[in-house]
Parts: sequence; structure tokens; C-alpha cells
Amino acid sequence: MPYVKIEMLDGRSAEQKAALARAIADAFVEHGGAKRESVWVVFDDVARSNWAIGGELLEKPAGK
Amino acid sequence: MPYVKIEMLDGRSAEQKAALARAIADAFVEHGGAKRESVWVVFDDVARSNWAIGGELLEKPAGK
Amino acid sequence: MPYVKIEMLDGRSAEQKAALARAIADAFVEHGGAKRESVWVVFDDVARSNWAIGGELLEKPAGK
Amino acid sequence: MPYVKIEMLDGRSAEQKAALARAIADAFVEHGGAKRESVWVVFDDVARSNWAIGGELLEKPAGK
Amino acid sequence: MPYVKIEMLDGRSAEQKAALARAIADAFVEHGGAKRESVWVVFDDVARSNWAIGGELLEKPAGK
Amino acid sequence: MPYVKIEMLDGRSAEQKAALARAIADAFVEHGGAKRESVWVVFDDVARSNWAIGGELLEKPAGK
Repeated sequence: MPYVKIEMLDGRSAEQKAALARAIADAFVEHGGAKRESVWVVFDDVARSNWAIGGELLEKPAGK
Repeated sequence: MPYVKIEMLDGRSAEQKAALARAIADAFVEHGGAKRESVWVVFDDVARSNWAIGGELLEKPAGK
Repeated sequence: MPYVKIEMLDGRSAEQKAALARAIADAFVEHGGAKRESVWVVFDDVARSNWAIGGELLEKPAGK
Repeated sequence: MPYVKIEMLDGRSAEQKAALARAIADAFVEHGGAKRESVWVVFDDVARSNWAIGGELLEKPAGK
Repeated sequence: MPYVKIEMLDGRSAEQKAALARAIADAFVEHGGAKRESVWVVFDDVARSNWAIGGELLEKPAGK
Repeated sequence: MPYVKIEMLDGRSAEQKAALARAIADAFVEHGGAKRESVWVVFDDVARSNWAIGGELLEKPAGK
């Protein structure tokens, strides 16, 4: 039953996502007492132009 | 006031989404005591390469 | 595979939630081509003191 | 530590997002007692065809 | 139409939330071209025992 | 920058959450190329009465 929503900067490869998904399922089986098939992991690739830290977009509008 | 965020595998048609949105609003009016215009439904179409169950991406990287 | 997260004002009964969950699963089977058991619905009961519309909390701090 | 996820209709410019992100960080520093660099703001641009109010998609399927 | 979900450490007062909600609505009117009444802001107060940074919970289990 | 929001049934211990948070940070460092301190993990403990699968709440209203 864990639903794991991951919001992260875009650019990671399919292989990285596959390894992350596997490691997270492993973690829930080992530490969370979950059944493997009940672990859902969903990735959301966020553009740098849509992510701000400290009030500043990681990718600024042109000319700024 | 219900905000209904739906994360689902991509591929559903505009007609399906229209029917789902209507049925969900109906449900909140009939069962949830909500005013129809206060029901917000937002769909997020997730690629199979971004959804993992049991540690396995539904669409694996090429060659895996 | 749809994950339906519902954020709504607190106060709805268990019976209302049961009826809403059933109606939403029905909607995804009928309109979304989903398998019933793959429909997850999660409710989040939000206090009026944590929900603002138009900049105003639905339940204001005492004395305001 | 505030994580501010903003789901809004697509179409806003990078300049608008930059100004929004800055204003939200300002608000958390001024009113929320947060450290500026700990404020994360993430925008999700939602198509009108994925947003429904009162059971109606803001952009209906063709011919409806 | 912006839906602003704020996940933050618990402990902020109702007055702080009221000021934050107002400032965020102001920001969307001024910078986002939104109608004030269409701005929804929802706060989620997260316990320090439920928030981890760098793999460490901000409030560790007793004895750790 | 990954923000990992975990929605799971309530009942897991602080120790389980600590181990999960650590394992997820490890996974992002090892597989995701992330800096450890940039990995945020937030747990949301969901009551069984707020989680439905296949249209049925995991904890049904009394008498049902």
C-alpha cells in the first residue's frame, strides 16, 4: 500500500529510474513490512524552469 | 471544495476523462454533500516508464 | 492503476467516504477501462483552518 | 522546509513563474519564519483538457 | 485555478497561515493573472518525525 | 532535489520510518546521482478508514 510519489528534476535515465524503483521496493519489504507487489512508485520529472529554491527558479527566464 | 487529483497511466481519451470527471462530480454531489461547482478534478497522465509496481517499471528500459 | 487522492474539508462520515470510494471505482471501471482492484482512493480530511480560498482561511484565527 | 506544490493551468510565462516563486519565498520568510533557501516551490502546468470544474473539463473533447 | 498545496513542518500559528494564504493569493493576482477567488491554498502540517532530510528524520526515534 | 512523498497505511514505527528514509536517501545517492542532503522524504500516515482499494475502504464503517 505505500504510494511513493517522487518529484525530481528531469534528466534521469530509464535505467536510473528502474534501479531507484527496485531499491525503494526493497526498502519497503525490508524495513516497512510491505508486500513487494503492493509498493507503487511514480516518478514526476520536473523541468528546472518549474523548480525554485529560495525564490529562484533553477532555470531562469532568458535574459535574467 | 474537494480537490481530486488523479494519477493514472497515460492513454485515456478526452472522452474518457470527460465521463470520469462528470461521474466524480456526480458522486460528490450525491454522496459527499458537495456543491457541483466546488468539485475540482485534475488528471495527471503518467507514462508507463514512470510507474513502478513491486519495484518494476511498467515499461522497462530498452534491453532489460 | 489510477491513484485518486482526494483532499476535502473534514467532517464527512465513514459512510459518505465508503459511498464515494465505491462510486469512484465504478466510474473507473465503467468509463476508464480500469480493473476494479487496481483503483486506489485515498482521502485526506483537511481542517477548515488549513484551507484558504481567495486568500482567506475558511476558519479564521480567533479574534479576526 | 516548506514544499509548495502549485498545480495551475498551463500558459503562464517563465517570468510569471519567477515572480511567483520569489513572492512565495518572500511570504514564507516574512510570515512563516522560514529560511529563504529552505523554501521549495514546484510548478505543475496542467492542460485545460486535464482540469475539470463541476464535472466539466475546461477544454472539452472535440465535437462536445 | 491555482491549487497550492503547502507541506511544511507543524507548529505554525493560525495567524501565520492566514498571512501566508493572503500573501500567496496576492502573488497570484499580481504576478499570475489569477482571479483572487480562484486561488486555493491548502496547508499540511507535517510532524518532524515524518520529515527526513539527507536520510535522517528531523525528529529521531527515542534512544537514537 | 528529489521530493519523495510517501503515503502509506498508518502504524509503522519511528524506527521503520528512520530506516526507510535512510534507505531511500542511499538509493538516490547510489542510483540517482543526488546529493544526500538534497533528498527530502515526507511520510503521510493514512488511516485504513481513509484508504480504499477496488472501491472498498480497508476499514469499513461500523455495521457494514
